[in-house]
Amino acid sequence: MSQTRTETDSMGQVEVPSDRYWGAQTQRSIHNFPIGRDTFVWGRPVIKALGILKKGAAQANAELGELPQDVADLVVRAADEVIAGDLDDHFPLVVFQTGSGTQSNMNSNEVISNRGIELAGGELGSKTPVHPNDHVNRGQSSNDTFPTAMHIAVLLELRDRLEGGVGVLRETLAAKAEEYADVVKVGRTHLQDATPITLGQEIGGWVAQIDYAMAEVRHAGEGLRELAIGGTAVGTGLNAHPRFGELAAARMGEEAGLELRSADNKFAALSAHDALVQTSAALRTLAGALMKMANDVRWLASGPRNGIGELVIPENEPGSSIMPGKVNPTQSEALTMVATRVFGNDATVAFAGTQGNFQLNVYKPVMVHAVLESIRLIADACQAFNDGCAVGLEPNTARIEANLASNLMQVTALNPHIGYDRAAAIAKKAHKEGLTLREAAVASGALTPEQFDEWVVPADMTRPRQVD
Amino acid sequence: MSQTRTETDSMGQVEVPSDRYWGAQTQRSIHNFPIGRDTFVWGRPVIKALGILKKGAAQANAELGELPQDVADLVVRAADEVIAGDLDDHFPLVVFQTGSGTQSNMNSNEVISNRGIELAGGELGSKTPVHPNDHVNRGQSSNDTFPTAMHIAVLLELRDRLEGGVGVLRETLAAKAEEYADVVKVGRTHLQDATPITLGQEIGGWVAQIDYAMAEVRHAGEGLRELAIGGTAVGTGLNAHPRFGELAAARMGEEAGLELRSADNKFAALSAHDALVQTSAALRTLAGALMKMANDVRWLASGPRNGIGELVIPENEPGSSIMPGKVNPTQSEALTMVATRVFGNDATVAFAGTQGNFQLNVYKPVMVHAVLESIRLIADACQAFNDGCAVGLEPNTARIEANLASNLMQVTALNPHIGYDRAAAIAKKAHKEGLTLREAAVASGALTPEQFDEWVVPADMTRPRQVD
Amino acid sequence: MSQTRTETDSMGQVEVPSDRYWGAQTQRSIHNFPIGRDTFVWGRPVIKALGILKKGAAQANAELGELPQDVADLVVRAADEVIAGDLDDHFPLVVFQTGSGTQSNMNSNEVISNRGIELAGGELGSKTPVHPNDHVNRGQSSNDTFPTAMHIAVLLELRDRLEGGVGVLRETLAAKAEEYADVVKVGRTHLQDATPITLGQEIGGWVAQIDYAMAEVRHAGEGLRELAIGGTAVGTGLNAHPRFGELAAARMGEEAGLELRSADNKFAALSAHDALVQTSAALRTLAGALMKMANDVRWLASGPRNGIGELVIPENEPGSSIMPGKVNPTQSEALTMVATRVFGNDATVAFAGTQGNFQLNVYKPVMVHAVLESIRLIADACQAFNDGCAVGLEPNTARIEANLASNLMQVTALNPHIGYDRAAAIAKKAHKEGLTLREAAVASGALTPEQFDEWVVPADMTRPRQVD
Amino acid sequence: MSQTRTETDSMGQVEVPSDRYWGAQTQRSIHNFPIGRDTFVWGRPVIKALGILKKGAAQANAELGELPQDVADLVVRAADEVIAGDLDDHFPLVVFQTGSGTQSNMNSNEVISNRGIELAGGELGSKTPVHPNDHVNRGQSSNDTFPTAMHIAVLLELRDRLEGGVGVLRETLAAKAEEYADVVKVGRTHLQDATPITLGQEIGGWVAQIDYAMAEVRHAGEGLRELAIGGTAVGTGLNAHPRFGELAAARMGEEAGLELRSADNKFAALSAHDALVQTSAALRTLAGALMKMANDVRWLASGPRNGIGELVIPENEPGSSIMPGKVNPTQSEALTMVATRVFGNDATVAFAGTQGNFQLNVYKPVMVHAVLESIRLIADACQAFNDGCAVGLEPNTARIEANLASNLMQVTALNPHIGYDRAAAIAKKAHKEGLTLREAAVASGALTPEQFDEWVVPADMTRPRQVD
Repeated sequence: MSQTRTETDSMGQVEVPSDRYWGAQTQRSIHNFPIGRDTFVWGRPVIKALGILKKGAAQANAELGELPQDVADLVVRAADEVIAGDLDDHFPLVVFQTGSGTQSNMNSNEVISNRGIELAGGELGSKTPVHPNDHVNRGQSSNDTFPTAMHIAVLLELRDRLEGGVGVLRETLAAKAEEYADVVKVGRTHLQDATPITLGQEIGGWVAQIDYAMAEVRHAGEGLRELAIGGTAVGTGLNAHPRFGELAAARMGEEAGLELRSADNKFAALSAHDALVQTSAALRTLAGALMKMANDVRWLASGPRNGIGELVIPENEPGSSIMPGKVNPTQSEALTMVATRVFGNDATVAFAGTQGNFQLNVYKPVMVHAVLESIRLIADACQAFNDGCAVGLEPNTARIEANLASNLMQVTALNPHIGYDRAAAIAKKAHKEGLTLREAAVASGALTPEQFDEWVVPADMTRPRQVD
Repeated sequence: MSQTRTETDSMGQVEVPSDRYWGAQTQRSIHNFPIGRDTFVWGRPVIKALGILKKGAAQANAELGELPQDVADLVVRAADEVIAGDLDDHFPLVVFQTGSGTQSNMNSNEVISNRGIELAGGELGSKTPVHPNDHVNRGQSSNDTFPTAMHIAVLLELRDRLEGGVGVLRETLAAKAEEYADVVKVGRTHLQDATPITLGQEIGGWVAQIDYAMAEVRHAGEGLRELAIGGTAVGTGLNAHPRFGELAAARMGEEAGLELRSADNKFAALSAHDALVQTSAALRTLAGALMKMANDVRWLASGPRNGIGELVIPENEPGSSIMPGKVNPTQSEALTMVATRVFGNDATVAFAGTQGNFQLNVYKPVMVHAVLESIRLIADACQAFNDGCAVGLEPNTARIEANLASNLMQVTALNPHIGYDRAAAIAKKAHKEGLTLREAAVASGALTPEQFDEWVVPADMTRPRQVD
Repeated sequence: MSQTRTETDSMGQVEVPSDRYWGAQTQRSIHNFPIGRDTFVWGRPVIKALGILKKGAAQANAELGELPQDVADLVVRAADEVIAGDLDDHFPLVVFQTGSGTQSNMNSNEVISNRGIELAGGELGSKTPVHPNDHVNRGQSSNDTFPTAMHIAVLLELRDRLEGGVGVLRETLAAKAEEYADVVKVGRTHLQDATPITLGQEIGGWVAQIDYAMAEVRHAGEGLRELAIGGTAVGTGLNAHPRFGELAAARMGEEAGLELRSADNKFAALSAHDALVQTSAALRTLAGALMKMANDVRWLASGPRNGIGELVIPENEPGSSIMPGKVNPTQSEALTMVATRVFGNDATVAFAGTQGNFQLNVYKPVMVHAVLESIRLIADACQAFNDGCAVGLEPNTARIEANLASNLMQVTALNPHIGYDRAAAIAKKAHKEGLTLREAAVASGALTPEQFDEWVVPADMTRPRQVD
Repeated sequence: MSQTRTETDSMGQVEVPSDRYWGAQTQRSIHNFPIGRDTFVWGRPVIKALGILKKGAAQANAELGELPQDVADLVVRAADEVIAGDLDDHFPLVVFQTGSGTQSNMNSNEVISNRGIELAGGELGSKTPVHPNDHVNRGQSSNDTFPTAMHIAVLLELRDRLEGGVGVLRETLAAKAEEYADVVKVGRTHLQDATPITLGQEIGGWVAQIDYAMAEVRHAGEGLRELAIGGTAVGTGLNAHPRFGELAAARMGEEAGLELRSADNKFAALSAHDALVQTSAALRTLAGALMKMANDVRWLASGPRNGIGELVIPENEPGSSIMPGKVNPTQSEALTMVATRVFGNDATVAFAGTQGNFQLNVYKPVMVHAVLESIRLIADACQAFNDGCAVGLEPNTARIEANLASNLMQVTALNPHIGYDRAAAIAKKAHKEGLTLREAAVASGALTPEQFDEWVVPADMTRPRQVD
């Protein structure tokens, strides 16, 4: 038995492996684009989205009388297998191909065509009874299908991966914030000792940043619910039934469990991907927030003896191949490295997003790939940071208390009583002479020891002055 | 009469120019930060915002009994002059200073103090009856005032500058889209001839991008309504009346004509500026949308004889110092240069936004400066593009019609009738033999001339197939 | 037989798969860092570089009497297998781990230790006779080994991958430039018709850009020849023989076929990776040059009938799933998408490069990964572009000649004879009245037909005026 | 007397202010490009470079017999005034104009023409005896002159501003490195305590980074010595004397005191600005190096009581408007803000650098502006950092010694004597039980007190093991 079979497209014949469902155009792409093959083959999210897309399109076409029901059924059955992941080995293409994603769209058309043919007992490559263009791609163009699949893939990953990965870390931190709501410690601004805060407040600031960023990610995701489907080749909807876009989007949404709709302006939907750029930007903001948190954690855990040392982080591995006994903030390091990668991905997405011309932006594959990578990395790294660091975070109470006791910036509590200028003189005196703040305050003659003890209460300084 | 007077702060005495209201700390900053002095002195937006801030704070403090009414009145009068722009010459500081903006906060405290003293008939530098720290800065810290001013400044510029500059261009384009709704022309994907669209659809795609981006800018701006005010030094609100933040925000909002409120989480509000990062990102998306539009315009106007030549743009200036008679798309060039600058500004903002530590991000000045610059440049460039290009845009009807007549991609209209494969063969035949599509179609035997004329109607191809 | 064996490190015991050479620390890393596992496992370049590193270090230690010769021999034999790629399955770690790359350094120590033990007939995990730290890592720290491996990996990929991929494209273009040295065509500035050039000159400009960028890449690569090896934990060289760094670098260089040396300043070599940042920047410049070239190619090939159409590119695949007969510039699209990715990678590298603290930059893995990815993608995409586009590039002579004949900017040749102002008037007249330049010129009365024919010779305009 | 006079260009008449030398095209640009007028008017460097350019061009043309000597003399005299800065008020244009810089080239042509006319006693606007195009722009086009001026402006600023500003800081740091060569202190990796280094080594690492980056800036600057001059409109040199480019470059070089030459490939010189991109990238590397240094300084100076506190920085201003007595690392903050701005500028430059089409890149003004801004900011900020921080940097000896005494990572010195595993156990024991390293080591039984004292000598740990 032959190891290849002959497939054809409008340019002629191509030999493809017998055990693969793909057809001539996929095979040409393998040949033409051997770029980054090790790591840039499309993964599950895009393949699944293509399956959802083709299933929904077939259902809509059948409902509108554009496709015979039996053909549509074959497409749906094959597409279900694509969605389930059973046919992933039949999607061999890489990101760096035609900038419209045409070849991946055709890959899905060809695989579903041939698998449908097989289900119907036909001959692979015969295009009968399921034709890749006339049936699977019915009422579609790569120019509207691929951006549709891009949006679906990203929405699924945001929902199924990002929410969970970030969410678990957010919950851990929120619980820690509550747990340590009463641990009063030194605040720091400009890296310099400042007035007291509680550890709960400090951690709560991280949570607030994550909450804001996630809300922005979700907001940006709303823009992704607008699908290009129905625009066909240039946005006009040529050759599609006028209700196709709307109906297909609804069917895809049902399959994906997502609210989806056909975009108001299909011309913009093909020629620009601004909702994806916005999503990338929100992921960048999220990465920035995580970076700030991870940096705070490692600085607060710095030491063990010659740093700040107010937090204790779990020891997960030996820290050094030469310095015995060293424990390093490795989860912070992994997470902040991810942040820099997300920044790079975002730079790619935003740059690519500007480069549309006329009716098409031909940077589609590189854009969706970068966004999906960012989602994956943030989600994974948050989960790892949660498991390997956040859940085990603990205050070093002795250090926190010792630091607080030596802090000079409690002087700020004196401002309302003795004025900024005299308070400043006291702090300076303490600093220069190595005194405690209390010693310097009393020595200054500006207040009595009793007044000091009444006015300077670190825990009181962690909230606005109480009024009657 | 002496040309300087002596001002003091907690570090001692400083000579300042007699005719300036600023005090010791401003003078120290002039000395310590001679960085980019030519172009990085703060402009109107930040100065005005500082005036609004100090006025609102004084009003709130007075209402809460934190500040004597007569002192508050002096502060308000001086702040009103700051708002009005009368004291701009008294704000000499540059962006690159303390990362918290402390020195600009103190600049406003000092100027308002001295101007208030002057209004009261007192002696400049005496700090009586209006003390820069104890009165003007009452219940405040640089750490919460400067980010408050940042938000107000950006919100004002978004409202007062961006909306107008972008809006006028958007309206011009929307009107052009309507005017040319029936001009059928060649569509282009991959820079290659594609199925027809109308010029109105093409322009409408630009409008849709602008509308989306502006909606995202406005959404991001919502986050800026949350002010840091009330957080004081580290976010705890130390030394402020517990209702101060809320009340001060309300008073500032009244003055500015903006809905403003005290931020839910002050710790995040001091240590991160994620809403500013998001605003910058949305401006970047807007810049990208404008870049795409401006690129389309110049390509469509390329020629006059050896390019696409379907649009005619106004001749505003001689195009070349060596090639006589050349007309260049200079407004597109200015606008796309602005886009690259906005991208750079955004890179600055996002990078700086990640670099907070503990209770403070000390990249505040560079962040707000970059966002304000982006707003200014986009608004100015949109207005210039509108006046110098968009209003004068006209279709080159002869060229459009000739191009459309020669286009082969109308073949796509045959797909539903004769299938993709036979249609492809016809297009290839026409291309290779230099035939019109009609000639090649009829020669192929796949359809009659009458069928061709019925099926291939460019205007019909600019909308979905009509169904009964 | 058990499927796992027990390995130990300074934190205790860990079970590892029996059929893998790695030890406790590698296993801990697998558990702790499940981040982007699908696509971020280290590939050949870094594994090979680690093999070269460990071999060279063992040789140097043996020569210096720091390691018994028989132990060194075992290390060398195992390292040779690492270099050859035989043990790639034993390197399971991902990029996002400890920021010093400690765990990948330990992965190599553990694998070489166990494979050396096996070669000596010992028991895996026994650390005898080859100890991962005391022998394989002798005189080293992750902090100096991993950056050493980074440099070697990048240098190898620059030499073995980039030079070839870019070189083949460069040669093709250079040959085309020569082949078409006499094809006179319209030049274009501001996208507008300009004075003539030859196609050879146009292509030659691309070659010049590639040559410049490659020279800059090579220059940046010179900085990578400086290795951190010898610095050990913090740059001081603690625990290493004073001649170890120098000698180890030499031995690594011999193995790699590269000129390598120990860095002058080890503190900078550990705490910053500026030569890598510079390499990334030069790759970015290269990507920008390729993007400009690929854009020119697709614009010159735009059409077929309604664009510029002066170049013909190969038809490699059907262009559209809906528009039959469409041929798209897909190789340009893949290459320019790669360019945007390289820009993103560079943003990651430069950002990460700034984030060192004290004696260490802990963004090492993400930096080297991004640079290696950029090299791989540029090399692959250049090869694909060469094979699928550049070798088949041909001028569309008929179009080129027709365009040139209609061009108005030949008017510039009149400047020296009749002055800029009168020349401008002629060009405008021709443009407005639809005349040829010759017709307008003669009609203007400024010159005779004979003078026109003598002065306006397109081929003469492609070079400086000839002088006697 | 009229306040305006009439100037003309090929498009007609324009009124310009009587007291300004500029002509019609400059006036049109003022009208057409009111973009960022507050801060984006060209400054000295570009104006000076335009003066040098026009002087050199006139000299070369005269020598070649292309321009009458008396006309050339007038051009030279006027250009000398431009170079000297006497005519800066006559250069009103902004960055965001035509992307070729045509209008600024014409601005210089017009100003020099009219000033030359004035010097000859002629009538402003008469173009006699000095015509802006035919004489001042002789043998030139904006397309080759503006990039020539860009290179000259950047080279001058690199030499006259950057070298000084960075150099003074570099020398201060180098002197500090020498001064503190024997101050042994804790090293830190991963923010965790590590083996000892000297303060001199730590500072020396910063110097090495600066030296590397400056060498790269200088290297990139070499590429700027290649000038576009001689390429005229599209790179072919049309209308220029064949020796013009070479000779003009030489004359400009003499005036500027720079080695300059005409570029080998003029097509690349007009259509791309890769040497400028490379210069920007090297400035980015420099900014990154400075950021690392400034971050180290502020972290080492963190405290005063609850941070690392090993360095003391000068107190230049009150640190806080609410916390009396606070001293902040403000110079570090200004410098790192500058770094983020330089990163943004570089993003602009690199993006713009990719966007050339055919024979021209039309992002010239925004590119050179961003590079010049980066140079200015780095130079200014380094000078300020030097004066306000570096010269006053001092070690806090007491803190350094106390830290060192408590550090556990001196355990690394035991590796060669007792092996990594036993050393690790000792460090862990000390950490957990709060012992000194010596106490834990002796208690472990692995060595005697005498051995400990012999083997663990911090100062010895700051250099490779001594061998005989």
